[in-house]
Amino acid sequence: MPAAAAEGARSARIRARLEELGLSLPAVAAPVAAYVPAVASGRHVHTSGQLPFVDGALPTTGKVGAEVTPERAAELAAVCCLNALAAVEALVGDLDRVTGVVKVTGYVASAAHFTAQPAVINGASELLGAVFGAAGTHARAAVGVAVLPLDAPVELDLLVELDEAIERDGVAAPSA
Amino acid sequence: MPAAAAEGARSARIRARLEELGLSLPAVAAPVAAYVPAVASGRHVHTSGQLPFVDGALPTTGKVGAEVTPERAAELAAVCCLNALAAVEALVGDLDRVTGVVKVTGYVASAAHFTAQPAVINGASELLGAVFGAAGTHARAAVGVAVLPLDAPVELDLLVELDEAIERDGVAAPSA
Amino acid sequence: MPAAAAEGARSARIRARLEELGLSLPAVAAPVAAYVPAVASGRHVHTSGQLPFVDGALPTTGKVGAEVTPERAAELAAVCCLNALAAVEALVGDLDRVTGVVKVTGYVASAAHFTAQPAVINGASELLGAVFGAAGTHARAAVGVAVLPLDAPVELDLLVELDEAIERDGVAAPSA
Repeated sequence: MPAAAAEGARSARIRARLEELGLSLPAVAAPVAAYVPAVASGRHVHTSGQLPFVDGALPTTGKVGAEVTPERAAELAAVCCLNALAAVEALVGDLDRVTGVVKVTGYVASAAHFTAQPAVINGASELLGAVFGAAGTHARAAVGVAVLPLDAPVELDLLVELDEAIERDGVAAPSA
Repeated sequence: MPAAAAEGARSARIRARLEELGLSLPAVAAPVAAYVPAVASGRHVHTSGQLPFVDGALPTTGKVGAEVTPERAAELAAVCCLNALAAVEALVGDLDRVTGVVKVTGYVASAAHFTAQPAVINGASELLGAVFGAAGTHARAAVGVAVLPLDAPVELDLLVELDEAIERDGVAAPSA
Repeated sequence: MPAAAAEGARSARIRARLEELGLSLPAVAAPVAAYVPAVASGRHVHTSGQLPFVDGALPTTGKVGAEVTPERAAELAAVCCLNALAAVEALVGDLDRVTGVVKVTGYVASAAHFTAQPAVINGASELLGAVFGAAGTHARAAVGVAVLPLDAPVELDLLVELDEAIERDGVAAPSA
């Protein structure tokens, strides 16, 4: 099959780029609840809202602008983003299949007077640019919310476009 | 037409499953404002954010973790989800056409220290699993927000995938 | 090519409608951060979350229900919506290509007891109806959040459907 042949010929380009950047994809975090980390529909993958888990724990909790600095929160947004990419890879098998990042929605648990949510979510946006180049260009919403699950400072989900459609059956893979 | 024939042959499988679960779909709540409960685009249906209306009224209001317990809020998330499914059915005519739930976005009006939003939205996720089985598996974002319309404790929207594309004209149906 | 021919034949219907309504599309606001105002994927355009910038500045800041009245906030939601339409036009070249508005997500920076978020986002929904007629009918989520970027009272993003798919390359256009 042409698709399979193309897959065989793929270099692990994005994997190599991640290594160049000194980054590695984490194991996919088990969802906190009854859902899966990512679902494909046609040529798109929607990830679940990702918390900045590192080795299964939140390294930092609290509100940005109070207990958490914007700089630290931007690092955590990058961690959320890596977790989201790991969820995409676990579902589709190879991040080289991502032809474009479409949308990032970033929620920042914010102290009452903190209004620099875009700077926080830049931690994710810049990572996507570094990893995917032009294909990492995305639309984005960044909002400040009262409180996030487990008192996480940031939560973020991704919508990405694939080179070709995936059957819905692919959904079962990450939870099986 | 094959599509019409297939439609004729359909058993109301999901309707029957809802009955088995002791559930019934409510009448579609009139939107609080100038929009419609659900819109189709290609093979997807996007619902509006659903409040936990029962017979046109909110049975419970307030913030989760303060006036509203997480357990009660999970029940309300299930009500939001039923309302969303009712909106989908009103648009597409038959929930058996849903080949997969793609994404759930759940907003929980949260007291300042309440961080168990995932447990609340589980009320919806578990309902989707019970109704649709594997096709109910979805990606999800659950966030805590300051306040929701009419002081509702929960708001939730769905993105679902259909067996085949619907013409945009279908949009007019639920509001006509 | 038929597509090009069709494009040549297009009257600037939506442009004319905007003029009739006394509205004009603003210059596309530069994103506050590392992303672009709108991205196409297949037949859909996703806009970034739009703030109510007018000539590059926020005319009003603060929380709705406190410093900002709901009426003023509804006007600002309409400004967000115009900015989103400008982002779509800058990407696709002609708003007549929009065959339908699919989804509006509206975030309202809300005082603790303000629960009329739908009335605020109506400012955008009614504008879409006035501009696009039936094609402006959309699904919508309106939520109250703690605080928004730059202390904006409203943020809003759009998902719209196009007459035909756009190549991902189109993405580069607005940022080049």
